[in-house]
Amino acid sequence: MRSHTQYLWFNTVNKQEFINITMQVEEILKKSCIKEGLCLVNAMHITSSIFINDDESGLHKDFSLWLERLAPFGKDKYQHNLTGEGNADAHLKRTIMGREAVVAVTQGKLDFGPWEQIFYGEFDGQRRKRVLVKIIGE
Amino acid sequence: MRSHTQYLWFNTVNKQEFINITMQVEEILKKSCIKEGLCLVNAMHITSSIFINDDESGLHKDFSLWLERLAPFGKDKYQHNLTGEGNADAHLKRTIMGREAVVAVTQGKLDFGPWEQIFYGEFDGQRRKRVLVKIIGE
Amino acid sequence: MRSHTQYLWFNTVNKQEFINITMQVEEILKKSCIKEGLCLVNAMHITSSIFINDDESGLHKDFSLWLERLAPFGKDKYQHNLTGEGNADAHLKRTIMGREAVVAVTQGKLDFGPWEQIFYGEFDGQRRKRVLVKIIGE
Repeated sequence: MRSHTQYLWFNTVNKQEFINITMQVEEILKKSCIKEGLCLVNAMHITSSIFINDDESGLHKDFSLWLERLAPFGKDKYQHNLTGEGNADAHLKRTIMGREAVVAVTQGKLDFGPWEQIFYGEFDGQRRKRVLVKIIGE
Repeated sequence: MRSHTQYLWFNTVNKQEFINITMQVEEILKKSCIKEGLCLVNAMHITSSIFINDDESGLHKDFSLWLERLAPFGKDKYQHNLTGEGNADAHLKRTIMGREAVVAVTQGKLDFGPWEQIFYGEFDGQRRKRVLVKIIGE
Repeated sequence: MRSHTQYLWFNTVNKQEFINITMQVEEILKKSCIKEGLCLVNAMHITSSIFINDDESGLHKDFSLWLERLAPFGKDKYQHNLTGEGNADAHLKRTIMGREAVVAVTQGKLDFGPWEQIFYGEFDGQRRKRVLVKIIGE
């Protein structure tokens, strides 16, 4: 069994952003030389997400508005914010969108359907954060 | 390390359906001859889900009504639908239910608790879609 | 490839609880002697969760209140409860929080960001339930 580990760093301009990282993950996979296996991609911070969906800007706006409705921002709305933080909503938003994606590696490629793309979802940005890519297989 | 990859196709009668695929995944596992490892099952389309829960029809109706409340259908409700699509709600519903399940393989079996069953969740059906089953181990 | 499988049992005092199990998973990892690989942690019951987030009690109260708003308890609110069960809301809450976490193992450690902690989320407790930890790698 082989394994390959790499980290991606992000420091977003905005508090909330969705960034397509599919190509970066594909490059890491190529470097790993693994042909058959599993690729884990996960946010290493608890106010950001990795998720797989469509690269369509209208949909991303829908995601933002929807998450704001399900888990609205608000300094006074959450007990977590009594600790001095203001990002409780970001913890909830990331919970909806998910921490990680596990992707099959088949014949040296991410084994994706026609529209699957990997996104980094930032909900409390403007600071340096990491994503882990770990591939195991042969 | 061994690996085994197989695809399941679905073309649902209704726009929304939950289909128990546990037996199909078990058969694929048997064919793989893998005794210890991990089994990834994921939707390859971004308006459908794989999730693990109870095979109880009342609960499935509850899931449907609940998802409709959290992410209602509506041609005019979403920016994604300005692209000509009408399925933005299906992208959101699938996000709640999840893209994938990772299941342990122990002594040649899916290592499940008493009520765990794997479901394909379709939110924009009536067309051909795929699910990937990838097992790695020994 | 090596693999290691272990089960954790829980019987919570309250119907709903969040329990930090990071140290228990780290001990299982140490016992496995696996240095590079993947660690799957999943609830084996369909009204409980494994999720990764911050170990901060205010945030946990926020999670509880938020889940109650998204998927309120109510004997008469759900069709699943016509089967004699009263826990339909727990199935929905667990769906939001997730069934499983997959964690990278790097140099013999859970490859975590600064605040990542693994939690068992119980939504229908006061009875014995299991969590599975499966590690594969080398």
